[in-house]
Amino acid sequence: MSRRRQIYEGKAKILYEGPEPGTIIQYFKDDATAFNNQKKGTINGKGVLNNRISEHVFTLLGQIGIPTHFIRRLNMREQLVRQVEIVPVEVIVRNVAAGTLSKRLGIEEGTPLPRTILEYCYKDDALGDPMITDEHIACFGWASQDEMHEISDMAIRVNDFLSGLFAGIGIKLVDFKLEFGRVWDGDFSRIILADEISPDGCRLWDMKSNEKLDKDRFRRDLGGEVEAYQEVARRLGLMPDEGA
Amino acid sequence: MSRRRQIYEGKAKILYEGPEPGTIIQYFKDDATAFNNQKKGTINGKGVLNNRISEHVFTLLGQIGIPTHFIRRLNMREQLVRQVEIVPVEVIVRNVAAGTLSKRLGIEEGTPLPRTILEYCYKDDALGDPMITDEHIACFGWASQDEMHEISDMAIRVNDFLSGLFAGIGIKLVDFKLEFGRVWDGDFSRIILADEISPDGCRLWDMKSNEKLDKDRFRRDLGGEVEAYQEVARRLGLMPDEGA
Ligand SMILES: Nc1ncnc2c1ncn2[C@@H]1O[C@H](COP(=O)(O)OP(=O)(O)O)[C@@H](O)[C@H]1O
Ligand SMILES: Nc1ncnc2c1ncn2[C@@H]1O[C@H](COP(=O)(O)OP(=O)(O)O)[C@@H](O)[C@H]1O
Ligand SMILES: [Mg+2]
Ligand SMILES: [Mg+2]
Repeated sequence: MSRRRQIYEGKAKILYEGPEPGTIIQYFKDDATAFNNQKKGTINGKGVLNNRISEHVFTLLGQIGIPTHFIRRLNMREQLVRQVEIVPVEVIVRNVAAGTLSKRLGIEEGTPLPRTILEYCYKDDALGDPMITDEHIACFGWASQDEMHEISDMAIRVNDFLSGLFAGIGIKLVDFKLEFGRVWDGDFSRIILADEISPDGCRLWDMKSNEKLDKDRFRRDLGGEVEAYQEVARRLGLMPDEGA
Repeated sequence: MSRRRQIYEGKAKILYEGPEPGTIIQYFKDDATAFNNQKKGTINGKGVLNNRISEHVFTLLGQIGIPTHFIRRLNMREQLVRQVEIVPVEVIVRNVAAGTLSKRLGIEEGTPLPRTILEYCYKDDALGDPMITDEHIACFGWASQDEMHEISDMAIRVNDFLSGLFAGIGIKLVDFKLEFGRVWDGDFSRIILADEISPDGCRLWDMKSNEKLDKDRFRRDLGGEVEAYQEVARRLGLMPDEGA
Protein backbone atom coordinates (compact mmCIF):
# COMPACT_ATOMS: atom_id res chain seq x y z
CA MET A 1 0.00 0.00 0.00
CA SER A 2 1.30 3.44 -0.88
CA ARG A 3 2.26 6.01 1.74
CA ARG A 4 -0.84 7.24 3.56
CA ARG A 5 -1.60 10.53 5.17
CA GLN A 6 -2.41 10.33 8.88
CA ILE A 7 -5.51 12.34 9.71
CA TYR A 8 -5.70 11.95 13.49
CA GLU A 9 -4.23 9.95 16.32
CA GLY A 10 -6.63 9.26 19.16
CA LYS A 11 -6.36 7.36 22.40
CA ALA A 12 -7.08 3.95 20.87
CA LYS A 13 -6.98 4.37 17.12
CA ILE A 14 -5.20 6.18 14.32
CA LEU A 15 -7.11 7.48 11.32
CA TYR A 16 -5.52 7.46 7.86
CA GLU A 17 -6.80 8.82 4.61
CA GLY A 18 -8.62 6.05 2.75
CA PRO A 19 -8.04 4.85 -0.83
CA GLU A 20 -11.10 6.70 -2.17
CA PRO A 21 -12.53 10.11 -1.30
CA GLY A 22 -14.99 9.87 1.58
CA THR A 23 -13.25 6.86 3.12
CA ILE A 24 -10.79 6.56 5.95
CA ILE A 25 -8.84 3.76 7.57
CA GLN A 26 -9.16 3.06 11.29
CA TYR A 27 -5.97 1.53 12.68
CA PHE A 28 -6.56 -0.15 16.08
CA LYS A 29 -3.72 0.37 18.57
CA ASP A 30 -3.00 -1.63 21.73
CA ASP A 31 -3.02 1.58 23.78
CA ALA A 32 -5.46 1.69 26.64
CA THR A 33 -6.48 4.79 28.60
CA ALA A 34 -8.96 5.36 31.39
CA PHE A 35 -10.34 8.11 33.61
CA ASN A 36 -10.03 10.73 30.92
CA ASN A 37 -6.46 9.83 29.97
CA GLN A 38 -5.10 9.92 33.53
CA LYS A 39 -4.33 6.22 33.41
CA LYS A 40 -2.41 4.89 30.42
CA GLY A 41 -1.18 1.46 29.45
CA THR A 42 -1.01 -1.19 26.78
CA ILE A 43 -3.08 -4.32 26.34
CA ASN A 44 -1.10 -6.60 24.03
CA GLY A 45 -3.16 -7.65 21.05
CA LYS A 46 -6.17 -5.49 22.00
CA GLY A 47 -6.09 -3.67 18.67
CA VAL A 48 -6.32 -6.90 16.70
CA LEU A 49 -9.20 -8.16 18.81
CA ASN A 50 -11.16 -4.89 18.76
CA ASN A 51 -10.74 -4.56 15.00
CA ARG A 52 -12.20 -8.04 14.60
CA ILE A 53 -14.98 -7.65 17.21
CA SER A 54 -16.03 -4.27 15.86
CA GLU A 55 -16.08 -5.60 12.29
CA HIS A 56 -18.33 -8.45 13.42
CA VAL A 57 -20.74 -6.27 15.41
CA PHE A 58 -21.01 -3.53 12.77
CA THR A 59 -21.64 -6.14 10.08
CA LEU A 60 -24.47 -7.68 12.09
CA LEU A 61 -25.94 -4.24 12.86
CA GLY A 62 -25.83 -3.42 9.15
CA GLN A 63 -27.85 -6.58 8.53
CA ILE A 64 -30.70 -5.39 10.76
CA GLY A 65 -30.75 -2.07 8.94
CA ILE A 66 -28.63 0.16 11.17
CA PRO A 67 -26.60 2.39 8.84
CA THR A 68 -22.92 2.25 9.84
CA HIS A 69 -19.60 3.61 8.64
CA PHE A 70 -18.12 0.11 8.26
CA ILE A 71 -17.01 -0.91 4.76
CA ARG A 72 -14.57 -3.81 5.23
CA ARG A 73 -11.70 -5.02 7.32
CA LEU A 74 -8.36 -4.57 5.55
CA ASN A 75 -5.99 -6.52 7.77
CA MET A 76 -5.36 -7.50 11.38
CA ARG A 77 -5.41 -3.96 12.70
CA GLU A 78 -7.15 -1.90 10.05
CA GLN A 79 -10.61 -1.40 8.70
CA LEU A 80 -11.94 0.79 5.92
CA VAL A 81 -14.85 3.00 6.93
CA ARG A 82 -16.87 5.88 5.48
CA GLN A 83 -15.57 9.20 6.64
CA VAL A 84 -18.13 11.04 8.71
CA GLU A 85 -18.43 14.35 10.47
CA ILE A 86 -18.46 13.08 14.05
CA VAL A 87 -21.37 14.39 16.17
CA PRO A 88 -19.59 15.59 19.34
CA VAL A 89 -22.05 13.73 21.54
CA GLU A 90 -21.17 10.36 23.02
CA VAL A 91 -24.21 8.20 23.66
CA ILE A 92 -24.10 5.92 26.68
CA VAL A 93 -26.72 3.21 26.95
CA ARG A 94 -27.18 1.62 30.36
CA ASN A 95 -29.09 -1.52 31.34
CA VAL A 96 -27.49 -2.18 34.71
CA ALA A 97 -26.07 0.38 37.17
CA ALA A 98 -22.26 0.61 36.98
CA GLY A 99 -19.41 3.07 36.70
CA THR A 100 -20.19 6.76 36.87
CA LEU A 101 -23.94 6.21 37.16
CA SER A 102 -23.46 4.11 40.30
CA LYS A 103 -21.06 6.62 41.73
CA ARG A 104 -23.01 9.76 40.88
CA LEU A 105 -26.43 8.47 41.96
CA GLY A 106 -25.35 6.17 44.78
CA ILE A 107 -26.79 3.03 43.20
CA GLU A 108 -24.92 -0.19 43.84
CA GLU A 109 -23.05 -1.54 40.86
CA GLY A 110 -24.89 -4.49 39.38
CA THR A 111 -28.38 -3.21 40.20
CA PRO A 112 -30.57 -3.84 37.15
CA LEU A 113 -32.11 -0.56 36.01
CA PRO A 114 -35.94 -0.49 35.96
CA ARG A 115 -35.57 0.78 32.39
CA THR A 116 -32.77 1.48 30.00
CA ILE A 117 -31.11 4.86 30.45
CA LEU A 118 -29.60 6.91 27.63
CA GLU A 119 -26.98 9.43 28.66
CA TYR A 120 -25.15 11.96 26.52
CA CYS A 121 -21.67 13.33 27.03
CA TYR A 122 -20.02 16.19 25.20
CA LYS A 123 -17.00 14.64 23.46
CA ASP A 124 -14.20 16.88 24.72
CA ASP A 125 -11.21 15.32 26.44
CA ALA A 126 -10.04 18.64 27.89
CA LEU A 127 -13.39 19.00 29.69
CA GLY A 128 -13.51 15.33 30.70
CA ASP A 129 -16.50 14.48 28.47
CA PRO A 130 -19.07 16.20 30.71
CA MET A 131 -22.61 14.85 30.85
CA ILE A 132 -25.09 16.93 28.86
CA THR A 133 -28.74 16.78 27.90
CA ASP A 134 -30.85 17.55 24.84
CA GLU A 135 -31.07 21.08 26.27
CA HIS A 136 -27.33 21.72 25.94
CA ILE A 137 -27.19 19.96 22.57
CA ALA A 138 -29.98 22.16 21.19
CA CYS A 139 -28.60 25.32 22.80
CA PHE A 140 -25.12 24.96 21.36
CA GLY A 141 -26.19 23.32 18.09
CA TRP A 142 -24.12 20.17 18.56
CA ALA A 143 -26.85 18.23 16.73
CA SER A 144 -30.33 19.06 15.47
CA GLN A 145 -33.45 17.73 17.17
CA ASP A 146 -34.08 15.48 14.16
CA GLU A 147 -30.57 14.12 14.41
CA MET A 148 -30.98 13.45 18.13
CA HIS A 149 -34.18 11.55 17.39
CA GLU A 150 -32.38 9.41 14.83
CA ILE A 151 -29.50 8.90 17.22
CA SER A 152 -31.61 7.90 20.21
CA ASP A 153 -33.80 5.59 18.09
CA MET A 154 -30.72 3.89 16.69
CA ALA A 155 -29.08 3.64 20.12
CA ILE A 156 -32.15 1.81 21.44
CA ARG A 157 -32.18 -0.58 18.48
CA VAL A 158 -28.46 -1.24 18.86
CA ASN A 159 -29.05 -1.95 22.55
CA ASP A 160 -31.83 -4.43 21.83
CA PHE A 161 -29.76 -6.25 19.22
CA LEU A 162 -26.55 -6.33 21.24
CA SER A 163 -28.37 -7.37 24.42
CA GLY A 164 -29.65 -10.36 22.46
CA LEU A 165 -26.34 -11.10 20.78
CA PHE A 166 -24.48 -11.13 24.09
CA ALA A 167 -27.27 -12.94 25.96
CA GLY A 168 -26.87 -15.71 23.39
CA ILE A 169 -23.25 -16.20 24.45
CA GLY A 170 -23.77 -15.90 28.21
CA ILE A 171 -22.77 -12.26 28.54
CA LYS A 172 -24.74 -9.45 30.18
CA LEU A 173 -24.56 -6.14 28.31
CA VAL A 174 -24.32 -3.75 31.27
CA ASP A 175 -23.67 -0.54 29.34
CA PHE A 176 -21.87 0.76 26.28
CA LYS A 177 -20.88 3.90 24.41
CA LEU A 178 -21.71 4.81 20.82
CA GLU A 179 -20.56 7.55 18.48
CA PHE A 180 -22.46 8.77 15.46
CA GLY A 181 -21.53 10.89 12.47
CA ARG A 182 -23.01 12.77 9.56
CA VAL A 183 -22.53 11.78 5.93
CA TRP A 184 -23.39 14.42 3.37
CA ASP A 185 -25.23 13.92 0.12
CA GLY A 186 -25.30 17.34 -1.50
CA ASP A 187 -27.08 19.65 0.89
CA PHE A 188 -28.54 16.82 2.92
CA SER A 189 -26.94 14.81 5.66
CA ARG A 190 -27.89 11.67 7.47
CA ILE A 191 -26.67 10.00 10.61
CA ILE A 192 -24.75 6.75 10.64
CA LEU A 193 -23.13 4.75 13.41
CA ALA A 194 -19.35 5.36 13.58
CA ASP A 195 -16.27 4.63 15.68
CA GLU A 196 -16.12 1.12 17.18
CA ILE A 197 -18.02 -1.32 19.37
CA SER A 198 -15.64 -3.41 21.44
CA PRO A 199 -14.84 -4.31 25.06
CA ASP A 200 -13.09 -0.91 25.24
CA GLY A 201 -16.42 0.89 25.27
CA CYS A 202 -18.79 -1.74 26.66
CA ARG A 203 -19.29 -3.30 30.06
CA LEU A 204 -19.69 -7.02 29.49
CA TRP A 205 -20.23 -9.33 32.45
CA ASP A 206 -20.24 -13.10 32.32
CA MET A 207 -23.82 -14.06 33.19
CA LYS A 208 -22.90 -16.87 35.55
CA SER A 209 -19.85 -15.53 37.37
CA ASN A 210 -20.38 -11.78 36.84
CA GLU A 211 -16.72 -11.74 35.79
CA LYS A 212 -15.86 -8.57 33.89
CA LEU A 213 -14.91 -9.14 30.25
CA ASP A 214 -14.11 -5.53 29.36
CA LYS A 215 -11.90 -2.51 29.95
CA ASP A 216 -12.85 -2.37 33.64
CA ARG A 217 -10.17 -5.07 34.08
CA PHE A 218 -7.67 -2.39 33.06
CA ARG A 219 -9.40 0.53 34.83
CA ARG A 220 -9.52 -1.36 38.10
CA ASP A 221 -6.23 -3.25 37.83
CA LEU A 222 -7.94 -6.63 37.81
CA GLY A 223 -5.44 -8.19 35.39
CA GLY A 224 -6.31 -10.63 32.60
CA GLU A 225 -7.29 -7.92 30.12
CA VAL A 226 -6.13 -9.82 27.04
CA GLU A 227 -7.78 -13.02 28.16
CA ALA A 228 -11.07 -11.17 28.76
CA TYR A 229 -11.06 -9.58 25.29
CA GLN A 230 -10.11 -12.94 23.78
CA GLU A 231 -12.95 -14.62 25.63
CA VAL A 232 -15.45 -12.17 24.14
CA ALA A 233 -14.03 -12.78 20.66
CA ARG A 234 -14.06 -16.53 21.26
CA ARG A 235 -17.70 -16.60 22.32
CA LEU A 236 -18.58 -14.48 19.30
CA GLY A 237 -16.99 -17.22 17.17
CA LEU A 238 -14.10 -15.06 16.07
CA MET A 239 -11.15 -17.08 17.40
CA PRO A 240 -9.66 -20.06 15.63
CA ASP A 241 -10.85 -23.14 17.52
CA GLU A 242 -8.38 -24.33 20.09
CA GLY A 243 -6.88 -27.69 19.26
CA ALA A 244 -8.72 -27.71 15.94
CA MET B 1 -47.94 31.26 69.37
CA SER B 2 -48.08 27.86 71.05
CA ARG B 3 -45.15 25.46 71.06
CA ARG B 4 -44.56 24.11 67.56
CA ARG B 5 -43.13 20.89 66.37
CA GLN B 6 -40.03 21.22 64.20
CA ILE B 7 -40.30 19.06 61.11
CA TYR B 8 -36.92 19.60 59.48
CA GLU B 9 -33.89 21.83 59.69
CA GLY B 10 -32.22 22.48 56.36
CA LYS B 11 -29.25 24.55 55.28
CA ALA B 12 -31.16 27.83 55.06
CA LYS B 13 -34.57 27.25 56.59
CA ILE B 14 -36.36 25.42 59.38
CA LEU B 15 -39.74 23.86 58.80
CA TYR B 16 -42.34 23.81 61.60
CA GLU B 17 -45.74 22.22 61.72
CA GLY B 18 -48.33 24.78 60.64
CA PRO B 19 -51.51 25.84 62.48
CA GLU B 20 -53.77 23.74 60.25
CA PRO B 21 -53.26 20.30 58.73
CA GLY B 22 -51.56 20.51 55.36
CA THR B 23 -49.70 23.68 56.25
CA ILE B 24 -46.15 24.28 57.43
CA ILE B 25 -44.13 27.27 58.50
CA GLN B 26 -40.87 28.13 56.75
CA TYR B 27 -38.47 29.92 59.10
CA PHE B 28 -35.68 31.71 57.19
CA LYS B 29 -32.27 31.51 58.89
CA ASP B 30 -29.22 33.69 58.26
CA ASP B 31 -27.11 30.59 57.60
CA ALA B 32 -25.38 30.45 54.25
CA THR B 33 -23.75 27.41 52.70
CA ALA B 34 -22.06 26.80 49.38
CA PHE B 35 -20.34 24.08 47.38
CA ASN B 36 -22.53 21.35 48.80
CA ASN B 37 -22.13 22.45 52.41
CA GLN B 38 -18.32 22.60 52.31
CA LYS B 39 -18.40 26.33 52.91
CA LYS B 40 -20.52 27.65 55.76
CA GLY B 41 -21.19 31.10 57.13
CA THR B 42 -23.76 33.62 58.19
CA ILE B 43 -25.16 36.59 56.32
CA ASN B 44 -26.71 38.88 58.92
CA GLY B 45 -30.31 39.64 58.12
CA LYS B 46 -30.43 37.36 55.08
CA GLY B 47 -33.36 35.37 56.48
CA VAL B 48 -35.47 38.48 56.89
CA LEU B 49 -34.68 39.66 53.37
CA ASN B 50 -35.25 36.27 51.72
CA ASN B 51 -38.54 35.80 53.55
CA ARG B 52 -39.71 39.14 52.20
CA ILE B 53 -38.32 38.70 48.68
CA SER B 54 -39.73 35.19 48.35
CA GLU B 55 -43.15 36.35 49.60
CA HIS B 56 -43.13 39.10 46.97
CA VAL B 57 -42.06 36.86 44.09
CA PHE B 58 -44.43 33.99 44.96
CA THR B 59 -47.32 36.43 45.29
CA LEU B 60 -46.62 37.86 41.85
CA LEU B 61 -46.23 34.39 40.34
CA GLY B 62 -49.56 33.39 41.87
CA GLN B 63 -51.11 36.38 40.13
CA ILE B 64 -50.05 35.13 36.69
CA GLY B 65 -51.52 31.72 37.49
CA ILE B 66 -48.51 29.74 38.68
CA PRO B 67 -49.75 27.55 41.55
CA THR B 68 -47.45 27.97 44.55
CA HIS B 69 -47.22 26.78 48.14
CA PHE B 70 -47.25 30.34 49.51
CA ILE B 71 -50.13 31.27 51.81
CA ARG B 72 -48.98 34.33 53.76
CA ARG B 73 -46.05 35.84 55.58
CA LEU B 74 -46.39 35.50 59.35
CA ASN B 75 -43.58 37.73 60.61
CA MET B 76 -40.06 38.90 59.78
CA ARG B 77 -38.61 35.42 59.36
CA GLU B 78 -41.58 33.15 58.87
CA GLN B 79 -44.10 32.36 56.20
CA LEU B 80 -47.03 29.95 56.14
CA VAL B 81 -47.04 27.61 53.14
CA ARG B 82 -48.93 24.55 51.96
CA GLN B 83 -47.14 21.37 52.86
CA VAL B 84 -46.08 19.47 49.78
CA GLU B 85 -44.33 16.23 48.97
CA ILE B 86 -41.14 17.65 47.53
CA VAL B 87 -40.18 16.27 44.10
CA PRO B 88 -36.51 15.35 44.58
CA VAL B 89 -35.52 17.15 41.39
CA GLU B 90 -34.07 20.63 41.50
CA VAL B 91 -34.76 22.60 38.36
CA ILE B 92 -32.08 25.02 37.21
CA VAL B 93 -33.01 27.57 34.56
CA ARG B 94 -30.14 29.29 32.77
CA ASN B 95 -30.17 32.32 30.52
CA VAL B 96 -26.49 33.24 30.68
CA ALA B 97 -23.52 30.91 31.16
CA ALA B 98 -22.25 30.91 34.76
CA GLY B 99 -21.26 28.63 37.62
CA THR B 100 -21.15 24.90 36.98
CA LEU B 101 -22.33 25.22 33.38
CA SER B 102 -19.39 27.50 32.54
CA LYS B 103 -16.99 25.22 34.32
CA ARG B 104 -18.30 21.93 32.97
CA LEU B 105 -18.68 23.04 29.36
CA GLY B 106 -15.83 25.52 29.17
CA ILE B 107 -18.04 28.50 28.32
CA GLU B 108 -16.95 31.86 29.64
CA GLU B 109 -19.09 33.19 32.46
CA GLY B 110 -21.37 35.92 31.19
CA THR B 111 -21.83 34.47 27.71
CA PRO B 112 -25.53 34.81 26.83
CA LEU B 113 -26.92 31.38 25.97
CA PRO B 114 -28.41 31.05 22.46
CA ARG B 115 -31.48 29.67 24.21
CA THR B 116 -32.59 29.04 27.75
CA ILE B 117 -31.32 25.79 29.25
CA LEU B 118 -33.21 23.72 31.81
CA GLU B 119 -31.10 21.43 33.93
CA TYR B 120 -32.23 18.93 36.55
CA CYS B 121 -30.34 17.82 39.64
CA TYR B 122 -31.21 15.00 41.97
CA LYS B 123 -31.80 16.67 45.36
CA ASP B 124 -29.44 14.67 47.58
CA ASP B 125 -26.81 16.50 49.60
CA ALA B 126 -24.81 13.34 50.29
CA LEU B 127 -24.39 12.84 46.53
CA GLY B 128 -23.75 16.54 45.88
CA ASP B 129 -27.00 17.08 43.93
CA PRO B 130 -25.78 15.29 40.77
CA MET B 131 -27.07 16.41 37.39
CA ILE B 132 -29.70 14.09 35.95
CA THR B 133 -31.98 13.96 32.93
CA ASP B 134 -35.55 12.91 32.18
CA GLU B 135 -34.08 9.45 31.60
CA HIS B 136 -32.94 9.03 35.20
CA ILE B 137 -36.11 10.64 36.54
CA ALA B 138 -38.29 8.21 34.60
CA CYS B 139 -36.08 5.22 35.38
CA PHE B 140 -36.12 5.75 39.13
CA GLY B 141 -39.66 7.14 39.33
CA TRP B 142 -38.66 10.48 40.90
CA ALA B 143 -41.49 12.13 38.98
CA SER B 144 -43.89 11.01 36.28
CA GLN B 145 -43.60 12.20 32.69
CA ASP B 146 -46.78 14.26 33.15
CA GLU B 147 -45.31 15.86 36.25
CA MET B 148 -42.07 16.67 34.43
CA HIS B 149 -44.09 18.33 31.66
CA GLU B 150 -45.93 20.46 34.23
CA ILE B 151 -42.67 21.26 35.94
CA SER B 152 -40.76 22.26 32.81
CA ASP B 153 -43.70 24.32 31.50
CA MET B 154 -43.94 26.14 34.82
CA ALA B 155 -40.19 26.66 35.00
CA ILE B 156 -40.23 28.34 31.60
CA ARG B 157 -43.14 30.59 32.59
CA VAL B 158 -41.43 31.51 35.85
CA ASN B 159 -38.29 32.34 33.87
CA ASP B 160 -40.19 34.60 31.49
CA PHE B 161 -41.93 36.43 34.30
CA LEU B 162 -38.86 36.81 36.50
CA SER B 163 -36.69 37.88 33.56
CA GLY B 164 -39.19 40.67 33.01
CA LEU B 165 -39.54 41.56 36.66
CA PHE B 166 -35.79 41.87 37.12
CA ALA B 167 -35.23 43.58 33.76
CA GLY B 168 -37.64 46.23 34.99
CA ILE B 169 -35.33 47.01 37.91
CA GLY B 170 -32.04 46.86 36.02
CA ILE B 171 -31.11 43.30 36.96
CA LYS B 172 -30.15 40.46 34.64
CA LEU B 173 -31.57 37.09 35.65
CA VAL B 174 -28.59 34.87 34.85
CA ASP B 175 -29.91 31.61 36.32
CA PHE B 176 -31.97 30.29 39.20
CA LYS B 177 -33.12 27.15 40.96
CA LEU B 178 -36.68 26.02 41.59
CA GLU B 179 -38.22 23.24 43.68
CA PHE B 180 -41.64 21.77 43.11
CA GLY B 181 -43.90 19.57 45.20
CA ARG B 182 -47.03 17.47 45.02
CA VAL B 183 -50.27 18.31 46.80
CA TRP B 184 -52.77 15.49 47.09
CA ASP B 185 -56.49 15.70 46.59
CA GLY B 186 -57.77 12.21 47.30
CA ASP B 187 -56.08 9.90 44.82
CA PHE B 188 -54.95 12.74 42.59
CA SER B 189 -51.97 14.99 42.96
CA ARG B 190 -50.87 18.14 41.26
CA ILE B 191 -47.62 20.04 41.13
CA ILE B 192 -47.08 23.42 42.75
CA LEU B 193 -44.05 25.64 43.12
CA ALA B 194 -42.44 25.27 46.56
CA ASP B 195 -39.38 26.30 48.59
CA GLU B 196 -38.18 29.88 48.00
CA ILE B 197 -37.04 32.29 45.31
CA SER B 198 -34.37 34.64 46.62
CA PRO B 199 -30.78 35.75 45.94
CA ASP B 200 -29.74 32.48 47.64
CA GLY B 201 -30.83 30.47 44.61
CA CYS B 202 -30.64 33.02 41.79
CA ARG B 203 -27.77 34.67 39.97
CA LEU B 204 -28.71 38.34 39.66
CA TRP B 205 -26.34 40.76 37.94
CA ASP B 206 -26.73 44.50 37.81
CA MET B 207 -27.35 45.25 34.15
CA LYS B 208 -25.00 48.23 33.98
CA SER B 209 -22.06 47.18 36.16
CA ASN B 210 -22.50 43.38 36.04
CA GLU B 211 -22.09 43.52 39.80
CA LYS B 212 -23.32 40.32 41.45
CA LEU B 213 -26.35 40.79 43.70
CA ASP B 214 -26.64 37.21 44.93
CA LYS B 215 -25.06 34.38 46.87
CA ASP B 216 -22.00 34.35 44.60
CA ARG B 217 -20.76 37.24 46.78
CA PHE B 218 -20.58 34.69 49.60
CA ARG B 219 -19.40 31.74 47.45
CA ARG B 220 -16.55 33.78 46.02
CA ASP B 221 -15.68 35.87 49.08
CA LEU B 222 -16.58 39.13 47.37
CA GLY B 223 -17.99 40.72 50.52
CA GLY B 224 -21.04 42.97 50.69
CA GLU B 225 -23.52 40.07 50.85
CA VAL B 226 -26.07 41.88 53.01
CA GLU B 227 -25.86 45.04 50.93
CA ALA B 228 -26.43 43.00 47.74
CA TYR B 229 -29.52 41.24 49.12
CA GLN B 230 -30.78 44.59 50.44
CA GLU B 231 -30.26 46.16 47.04
CA VAL B 232 -32.40 43.49 45.40
CA ALA B 233 -35.13 44.03 48.02
CA ARG B 234 -34.84 47.79 47.60
CA ARG B 235 -35.24 47.67 43.83
CA LEU B 236 -38.22 45.36 44.26
CA GLY B 237 -39.76 48.10 46.41
CA LEU B 238 -39.54 46.07 49.61
CA MET B 239 -37.33 48.36 51.73
CA PRO B 240 -38.62 51.34 53.64
CA ASP B 241 -37.48 54.43 51.72
CA GLU B 242 -34.24 55.90 53.00
CA GLY B 243 -34.67 59.28 54.56
CA ALA B 244 -38.45 58.99 54.33
N1 LIG C 1 -16.10 7.18 10.32
C1 LIG C 1 -15.40 8.11 10.96
N2 LIG C 1 -15.03 9.26 10.35
C2 LIG C 1 -14.33 10.21 11.01
N3 LIG C 1 -13.96 10.10 12.30
C3 LIG C 1 -14.30 8.98 12.95
C4 LIG C 1 -15.02 7.95 12.34
N4 LIG C 1 -15.24 6.98 13.26
C5 LIG C 1 -14.66 7.39 14.40
N5 LIG C 1 -14.09 8.60 14.23
C6 LIG C 1 -13.32 9.38 15.21
O1 LIG C 1 -11.99 8.90 15.12
C7 LIG C 1 -11.40 8.82 16.40
C8 LIG C 1 -11.04 7.36 16.68
O2 LIG C 1 -9.90 7.27 17.46
P1 LIG C 1 -9.93 7.14 19.05
O3 LIG C 1 -8.61 6.60 19.45
O4 LIG C 1 -11.16 6.44 19.47
O5 LIG C 1 -10.01 8.69 19.40
P2 LIG C 1 -10.42 9.47 20.73
O6 LIG C 1 -9.24 9.44 21.63
O7 LIG C 1 -10.74 10.85 20.20
O8 LIG C 1 -11.65 8.76 21.26
C9 LIG C 1 -12.43 9.32 17.38
O9 LIG C 1 -12.15 10.69 17.67
C10 LIG C 1 -13.74 9.18 16.64
O10 LIG C 1 -14.67 10.15 17.04
N1 LIG D 1 -44.09 23.54 50.89
C1 LIG D 1 -43.17 22.69 51.34
N2 LIG D 1 -43.53 21.54 51.95
C2 LIG D 1 -42.59 20.67 52.39
N3 LIG D 1 -41.28 20.85 52.24
C3 LIG D 1 -40.85 21.97 51.62
C4 LIG D 1 -41.77 22.94 51.14
N4 LIG D 1 -41.06 23.93 50.55
C5 LIG D 1 -39.76 23.59 50.67
N5 LIG D 1 -39.62 22.42 51.31
C6 LIG D 1 -38.39 21.74 51.69
O1 LIG D 1 -38.01 22.31 52.92
C7 LIG D 1 -36.60 22.50 52.99
C8 LIG D 1 -36.29 23.97 53.15
O2 LIG D 1 -35.15 24.17 53.90
P1 LIG D 1 -33.72 24.38 53.26
O3 LIG D 1 -32.89 25.03 54.31
O4 LIG D 1 -33.83 25.01 51.91
O5 LIG D 1 -33.31 22.83 53.11
P2 LIG D 1 -32.19 22.10 52.26
O6 LIG D 1 -30.92 22.26 53.00
O7 LIG D 1 -32.71 20.67 52.22
O8 LIG D 1 -32.19 22.74 50.89
C9 LIG D 1 -36.03 21.96 51.69
O9 LIG D 1 -35.59 20.63 51.88
C10 LIG D 1 -37.24 21.97 50.75
O10 LIG D 1 -37.16 20.96 49.78
MG1 LIG E 1 -12.45 6.88 21.12
MG1 LIG F 1 -32.77 24.58 50.14
